[in-house]
Amino acid sequence: MRTEVVGVDLASRTVSWRRTDGRRDGGPREGVEGFDELLLATGAVPRRPPVPGFDAGPEAGVHGVQTLDDGSALLADLDGSSGHRVERVVVVGGGYIGLEVAEACVVRGLHVTVVQRGETPLGTVDDDMGELIAEAVRGEGVHLLTGEEVCGLELGPAAQGGRVRAVHTASGRELPCDLVVLGLGVEPGVELARGAGVPLGESGAIAVDVGQRTRVEGVWAAGDCTEVRHRVSGRGVHVPLGTHANKQGRVAGINLGGGYATFPGVVGTAITKVCRVEIGRTGLSTEEAERAGFRVVTAAVDSTTTAGYMPGAEPVRVKLVADEGSGRLLGGQVVGRSGAGKRVDALAVCVWNNMTVEEVLGLDLAYAPPFAPVWDPVLIAARKAAQAVEAACQRPA
Amino acid sequence: MRTEVVGVDLASRTVSWRRTDGRRDGGPREGVEGFDELLLATGAVPRRPPVPGFDAGPEAGVHGVQTLDDGSALLADLDGSSGHRVERVVVVGGGYIGLEVAEACVVRGLHVTVVQRGETPLGTVDDDMGELIAEAVRGEGVHLLTGEEVCGLELGPAAQGGRVRAVHTASGRELPCDLVVLGLGVEPGVELARGAGVPLGESGAIAVDVGQRTRVEGVWAAGDCTEVRHRVSGRGVHVPLGTHANKQGRVAGINLGGGYATFPGVVGTAITKVCRVEIGRTGLSTEEAERAGFRVVTAAVDSTTTAGYMPGAEPVRVKLVADEGSGRLLGGQVVGRSGAGKRVDALAVCVWNNMTVEEVLGLDLAYAPPFAPVWDPVLIAARKAAQAVEAACQRPA
Repeated sequence: MRTEVVGVDLASRTVSWRRTDGRRDGGPREGVEGFDELLLATGAVPRRPPVPGFDAGPEAGVHGVQTLDDGSALLADLDGSSGHRVERVVVVGGGYIGLEVAEACVVRGLHVTVVQRGETPLGTVDDDMGELIAEAVRGEGVHLLTGEEVCGLELGPAAQGGRVRAVHTASGRELPCDLVVLGLGVEPGVELARGAGVPLGESGAIAVDVGQRTRVEGVWAAGDCTEVRHRVSGRGVHVPLGTHANKQGRVAGINLGGGYATFPGVVGTAITKVCRVEIGRTGLSTEEAERAGFRVVTAAVDSTTTAGYMPGAEPVRVKLVADEGSGRLLGGQVVGRSGAGKRVDALAVCVWNNMTVEEVLGLDLAYAPPFAPVWDPVLIAARKAAQAVEAACQRPA
Repeated sequence: MRTEVVGVDLASRTVSWRRTDGRRDGGPREGVEGFDELLLATGAVPRRPPVPGFDAGPEAGVHGVQTLDDGSALLADLDGSSGHRVERVVVVGGGYIGLEVAEACVVRGLHVTVVQRGETPLGTVDDDMGELIAEAVRGEGVHLLTGEEVCGLELGPAAQGGRVRAVHTASGRELPCDLVVLGLGVEPGVELARGAGVPLGESGAIAVDVGQRTRVEGVWAAGDCTEVRHRVSGRGVHVPLGTHANKQGRVAGINLGGGYATFPGVVGTAITKVCRVEIGRTGLSTEEAERAGFRVVTAAVDSTTTAGYMPGAEPVRVKLVADEGSGRLLGGQVVGRSGAGKRVDALAVCVWNNMTVEEVLGLDLAYAPPFAPVWDPVLIAARKAAQAVEAACQRPA
């Protein structure tokens, strides 16, 4: 039985629901349920700009990648078990999901084009780090089109199944293809909350306090539908990640049950692996920091994941963003091969604790030749950032 | 030209030296050099208990592993290029170096026995974590004898080269062998300092302040000969690791040159890889914490280095040691396969910042399926430790 909540009425403290499975088993088709406490866990919804063809659906070879059902439909279509021969795939969007789907297609031997609006993939890292990612992704055989906007999908005649045939871009390109994946990110699922008058925050997601209470007595929210506090910028942001959702669910559950727990906010940590490239980021990127009002200095270093003389030493680039005046570490980004990505965790803990780059430089991080050079890449970057902070401080105003 | 400093005279502010290379090139054989400022960087010396045979030397097949020369002598002997056939190796000492040498020998197809005094290898981790290491090391084909003390080496007749034939243990075992490696750790090289009257600290290493100044005006020290402050126990300790030595050299150099820099102390982070097992530790072990006067709670969890459903998910165990009263994280240990070891860095930064396990539990660590389960093993361990702190707190006194 599939049931959808279609409305929340705060005055009568009820939710109204209706059956969506279409089965006729004699049970009620819709109803109203009263509540003392209500938890909104309405998740996120895929972003669907009003581009012709984006709503064509999986039968037309136009796939979203939000739900498990989306995943099996995509898999069946890629496998050819949906009855269509798929050789050329266009992925719209060069974020985490877009790149991960592109990798999965390349691994299957398909011809893959990723079309994205920004100049480099993964808008959450700085452009110079994004360049590294672009290079790596292209090196794996993905055709990456940056600075391009999709303006329409061309579908075949309905009589022939209406399958997608090509993607058209604003600059006039036509990309022939057999399948399209839409990886355009998500928006908070706030329809119910908005309808009920539960206030949203500055990010457009449901505003909650550290205990996951909304601004309406007895109404709670947790997960991808909620706003979280960014501990560096101090702003309310929408960061739809499973790790936050999971923690928030725990916090809401404890508090709903009469206990006490808090969700302490986020520092914007994220990680992904695209083909052989690992990408980690935490805190604010240069652009985010500037937008948040910081004057920043940055430092980037190229190093290796192990002592350089070890077999299997892999390249890693670490970039740090620091506040020019105080030297406070505002963010860090890591791009490299095997063993690179999870290094961002140490930086995340530094950002969490408001450490300065000078303090980071003194940290006691683990060293042995199979794991790092004597000066861990994170520490070298901190040293360089500390020098940049010092130089900025000595510059005439 | 090899020159050895043989004495420091603080009254006349001179060092006396002598040539040790035995060459006769007409140059002076010894001399005296005055100084305004003196830096002691005398390193560490291998520990050599007065056990019969330990001083036999590489010609007898008894090897230390301290210098590059030691390394090439050992390599030549293992290779057979020293003219001796080596099949059975005994490594005395189950610390980092002992285990790393054992691995190198196993990789060469040799029969290796490690003899060590403690009940589990790597005395710097708790026994239950050590058990995991023992199991893994044995699984790689190393014969590991724990709780055994070596009481003597049996050497062949001098006429036949005087090569080592067997190792005898206090419990009466005789271990026939062709080569012995002594991995018994090091002591601070303080002979010169002690001779000159430069004060040592509670650990027996040279006492220095945060700027690497000894207690004698104009005399500095850096590296493995010095004592460092442990930021958790507050005690002076001897932690002879390249990463500290390197940082201290930088600090001493900056200060000697008229600048300002400080060495902020250590939290006891260390890492090693033995065969396929990665071992990281930071802060205080249970025993160290209790010795430092803490009442501790511990929590250990078994998890995986990636989401459990990913191909290549590897086991990892994380153990945390926390202060029972405050919940402060005192230390952490990680043992696992590929991708496990460097996770200790995040814990090192937590310990550095005096975080409680409750705070650690809320951290924004990086999650994506190829890198961690949704709840990173570090966070699961923190959650379990926080529960233990809470339980201890509710227990009647």
